[in-house]
Amino acid sequence: MKSLSNDQVFYAFAPDLEPHLTVDQGEEFVLNTCDCFENQLSSDEDTLDKLDWNRINPATGPVAISGVKPGNVVRIDIKKLELTGKSVMTTIPGAGMISGITEASTRVMDNDDGVLTVATEKGELQLPLKPMIGVIGLAPAEGSIPTGTPGKHGGNMDCNLIGEGASLYLQAAVEGGLFGCGDAHALMGDGEVLVCGAETPARVTLAAAVVDVPQLPTPFVETEELYAAIATAKTSDEALKMAVDNMFAFLTGIVGLSEGDAGRLMSLVGDLKFCQVVDPEITVRFEFPKAVLAQLGFAGIGV
Amino acid sequence: MKSLSNDQVFYAFAPDLEPHLTVDQGEEFVLNTCDCFENQLSSDEDTLDKLDWNRINPATGPVAISGVKPGNVVRIDIKKLELTGKSVMTTIPGAGMISGITEASTRVMDNDDGVLTVATEKGELQLPLKPMIGVIGLAPAEGSIPTGTPGKHGGNMDCNLIGEGASLYLQAAVEGGLFGCGDAHALMGDGEVLVCGAETPARVTLAAAVVDVPQLPTPFVETEELYAAIATAKTSDEALKMAVDNMFAFLTGIVGLSEGDAGRLMSLVGDLKFCQVVDPEITVRFEFPKAVLAQLGFAGIGV
Repeated sequence: MKSLSNDQVFYAFAPDLEPHLTVDQGEEFVLNTCDCFENQLSSDEDTLDKLDWNRINPATGPVAISGVKPGNVVRIDIKKLELTGKSVMTTIPGAGMISGITEASTRVMDNDDGVLTVATEKGELQLPLKPMIGVIGLAPAEGSIPTGTPGKHGGNMDCNLIGEGASLYLQAAVEGGLFGCGDAHALMGDGEVLVCGAETPARVTLAAAVVDVPQLPTPFVETEELYAAIATAKTSDEALKMAVDNMFAFLTGIVGLSEGDAGRLMSLVGDLKFCQVVDPEITVRFEFPKAVLAQLGFAGIGV
Repeated sequence: MKSLSNDQVFYAFAPDLEPHLTVDQGEEFVLNTCDCFENQLSSDEDTLDKLDWNRINPATGPVAISGVKPGNVVRIDIKKLELTGKSVMTTIPGAGMISGITEASTRVMDNDDGVLTVATEKGELQLPLKPMIGVIGLAPAEGSIPTGTPGKHGGNMDCNLIGEGASLYLQAAVEGGLFGCGDAHALMGDGEVLVCGAETPARVTLAAAVVDVPQLPTPFVETEELYAAIATAKTSDEALKMAVDNMFAFLTGIVGLSEGDAGRLMSLVGDLKFCQVVDPEITVRFEFPKAVLAQLGFAGIGV
């Protein structure tokens, strides 16, 4: 299987990146990814002053997907997500969303056998892992978007739905799409309020293919249970409005619900949620259960 | 058991309300509540021009709780939440968070046997009920807060955690607290993006008592699985910051976690979520699982 090692990384999604790998549509490939600190912190004594801040949030890639044209909607399947090292978290005063963080610290944690072990002053915790990918995207049509920033192109969305078995739909802006991902987390709650989750290197097995659903509002996620419209904006209020309107567009335009049916069902069984509130912009999603749409005869995206 | 009928209602939480009922601390009592339209819409033909808009979001009460003093934290237990009529939803162009709603309509729905039956143009849906209370609060120290508005006093928070078995903690601002609730929903997703859930009259069995945890950040919710700090503000960004900082204050001040432990665990297993984005202000909550705190020896609030 074609693969890239975790030193084949980039730090900004851009149209002029040279692909490190080219894959066919639907072909499985492997990206080995660093954690968001590019694996620079390996013990509790590795303090932040050690960090080279030019090496934050590396994405492995870019990968060109044969036949992808600007405007295509590309489905990216996360076939497998394996953690390949310990997890690390940092506290950084003034970063993240918690006013009470006053001390900088580093904590390295084991994540063996499906369990994250967290040492606390009150005892050791064992938390079940839910691995996910923080940074995942395609190159924009122009400009250069740091891999730490989320947006229409994907990027640092920190959506904890994007784990093994999930599919992410993005619109390509350049030939080949120029895909990359990194910043896996062993575990992360909605919001990522400390500015980091359990940051972990990973081995990600992926496949990508164009789907003939040009009007799909992207970024869009599909898991076994649900669909989610993801939106990023400068404020939560702008982002949530986009996520809501994008899910409404999906339900009326692609699923074919009437305006009233879509609105009622969104209010009854749809959930507006935060992805993250600590990156340069805010990311929000609107989730809708697939089972409800299956009851109404919807067979799936592109089916 | 003492009770109030659903014509003993008020439309604004205020310190000078006359109590319709006085109960002892811990004494169970029953409030019969109207739906948010004060049961004015009973068929699909009952259009909005029929509505008396002065009778929106009635809260049954107020109830004075003996011995409650200003500054006390009061725990309100929802012992039972029974739906007592059909559910209704409306679409209102320009209201709510969905830009694509262009037509006004009314839909009355059955909610028998634990199932909400929703007629759609593509067929009939059966959705499991999750009854909850939209409006629940105490009187503020001064002024008058319409029952349609959420805030520090509680009010129209539309938090779908507040159902049977949940407890809500609020800080009393006046003698007796002056409690009221209404606006039950048979089912409502996070966000309530259409401006309404499945609006339903209900019979609510409650009990209220002072708890000796004066520093508890309120409003605060406890369910079987989790704690949640609820915050309301003009923007989502202000509300989420309050909810995050309030949960951090709970975890460090009451549970006794260190700053770093609280921050890490909030980012790993805490979830920042929307309650509603369609009332006069936005309501957000931060959820934290009780099982994690139990592992660390925390026995409960006020224990």
